[in-house]
Amino acid sequence: MTLLSALDYASVAVFALTGALVASRAQLDLVGFIFIACLTAVGGGTLRDVMLDRAPFWVTDPVVIAVAAAAAVLVFFAAHRLESRYRALLWLDACALAVAVPAGVGVALGAEVGWPVVLVMGMITGCMGGLMRDVVCNEVPLVLKQGEIYVTAAFAGALAAVVLAGLGRDGALIACAVVTFVLRAGSIAFGWRLPVYRPRPPRDGLR
Amino acid sequence: MTLLSALDYASVAVFALTGALVASRAQLDLVGFIFIACLTAVGGGTLRDVMLDRAPFWVTDPVVIAVAAAAAVLVFFAAHRLESRYRALLWLDACALAVAVPAGVGVALGAEVGWPVVLVMGMITGCMGGLMRDVVCNEVPLVLKQGEIYVTAAFAGALAAVVLAGLGRDGALIACAVVTFVLRAGSIAFGWRLPVYRPRPPRDGLR
Amino acid sequence: MTLLSALDYASVAVFALTGALVASRAQLDLVGFIFIACLTAVGGGTLRDVMLDRAPFWVTDPVVIAVAAAAAVLVFFAAHRLESRYRALLWLDACALAVAVPAGVGVALGAEVGWPVVLVMGMITGCMGGLMRDVVCNEVPLVLKQGEIYVTAAFAGALAAVVLAGLGRDGALIACAVVTFVLRAGSIAFGWRLPVYRPRPPRDGLR
Repeated sequence: MTLLSALDYASVAVFALTGALVASRAQLDLVGFIFIACLTAVGGGTLRDVMLDRAPFWVTDPVVIAVAAAAAVLVFFAAHRLESRYRALLWLDACALAVAVPAGVGVALGAEVGWPVVLVMGMITGCMGGLMRDVVCNEVPLVLKQGEIYVTAAFAGALAAVVLAGLGRDGALIACAVVTFVLRAGSIAFGWRLPVYRPRPPRDGLR
Repeated sequence: MTLLSALDYASVAVFALTGALVASRAQLDLVGFIFIACLTAVGGGTLRDVMLDRAPFWVTDPVVIAVAAAAAVLVFFAAHRLESRYRALLWLDACALAVAVPAGVGVALGAEVGWPVVLVMGMITGCMGGLMRDVVCNEVPLVLKQGEIYVTAAFAGALAAVVLAGLGRDGALIACAVVTFVLRAGSIAFGWRLPVYRPRPPRDGLR
Repeated sequence: MTLLSALDYASVAVFALTGALVASRAQLDLVGFIFIACLTAVGGGTLRDVMLDRAPFWVTDPVVIAVAAAAAVLVFFAAHRLESRYRALLWLDACALAVAVPAGVGVALGAEVGWPVVLVMGMITGCMGGLMRDVVCNEVPLVLKQGEIYVTAAFAGALAAVVLAGLGRDGALIACAVVTFVLRAGSIAFGWRLPVYRPRPPRDGLR
């Protein structure tokens, strides 16, 4: 098993856990858990594959679906043991982001596209599964929480991989995972954030 | 006309009716009705086709668009005659699900993919059009109503088709439609449902 | 540079501005601005390309991503100078619609598909980027505002292009842009609208 396929499996399993946690918040049944878990797990990678004109990775390797379903079943029967499902969701989502971004970058590096496209594919793979999960379940997307470092972490990780790609693919992917996780974890644990847009004149036209 | 293309047309027409009913709830104009009807009617099948790397079925057969538009016009001028638009929506949606799942399964069976992928394609074709309709119109997705048998019905129908596929395609597709409809109808009419996730400790961390 | 590629760039830049304005409403950080701007700018065209089985236009020409990012940066630092961000958003969105619909029609005309498919591709390219922007940011989609001429403008513009396509492509695309913009602008400035659906019996079953 290559590093790249290990990253793909890991991101599927961890994103599926986050999807099932959101499903538990919506109090769905077991099949609903599996549905949201699969959507979250394969959403970003599927978009990446469709845009690079590859068959979606779960079509060529259906084991992925079994992994996501197993994660959903686990959460259905064990989520009540968690002290705080929201903390678990945040941290699992950070881990999933940190493996999904390099997975996306790795595939794009192999597809012979320009580096801006590699950047975007990393961000799509990392962010879109979670975004679909939140939009479908009517949650405020984690991606868009005010001032949280999320897309920024994906962007920085993908950028690190692009810069270091010349030194060998596996090293670049590991650097990407580390950069993404450190930035995202710093945002969760220490409240790191970027300055957000604030309308300068206090009363402003957009409502 | 084969059974498979009949299923495709039927699912387009009935999903378009449900899309137009949701548009009537949002009080859109006639073109808005047609837009939502088309989105609902072709959304699931389009996703399936893109993932199987086929041209979307309405690109190769634009009659589909005319069928969806006609359904939208019908609802625009006749919906006020319905006693309860919500009951009509529920039952039409159940019919559409019961034809769309076998349509998705049928196409996937012809695409030489593994059986887990056939299962997923049936569920995507059945559930995604309605999901897009509800997300775009800001309704709580029918797919995710607590404890309702919806994704489960699609799953059971697709599973029946996969199990029976050895006995001939048309029989498998009919079995799929029947299983899907019976489960979904039972949920609407008799309140059949699956146990939903309930957090065991009464006060729990996820807000 | 052909008229068609000029339309593509213009629609990217102006849709990116609208995306960034919506991001400013959600008070995101700079990377969030870029993310929403890119999603809005390339969303519709990407859907069109995937459905026509072409590589997404920003994969073959990554300059598009730089244009969208630059527009986002501009809005991040300058939006507070606007007297009314909402008016700016409405009018920029109208301009973007009026260039994106002919861009979609132009690509579809070159792809040898039937005229109903050309119509739909024009509407998808024009409407879907803004729809994704609003769904992701949890705004009421502009596309679906009651009685506003929006999808209708896209439809009329695309229809004009299809009718006039025999007289030469560039003329048809210019006519498409003009028809789309005039209808949309009339709706914003003079309140032009289509009759919307109204349930005839005052108390009705759908809630």
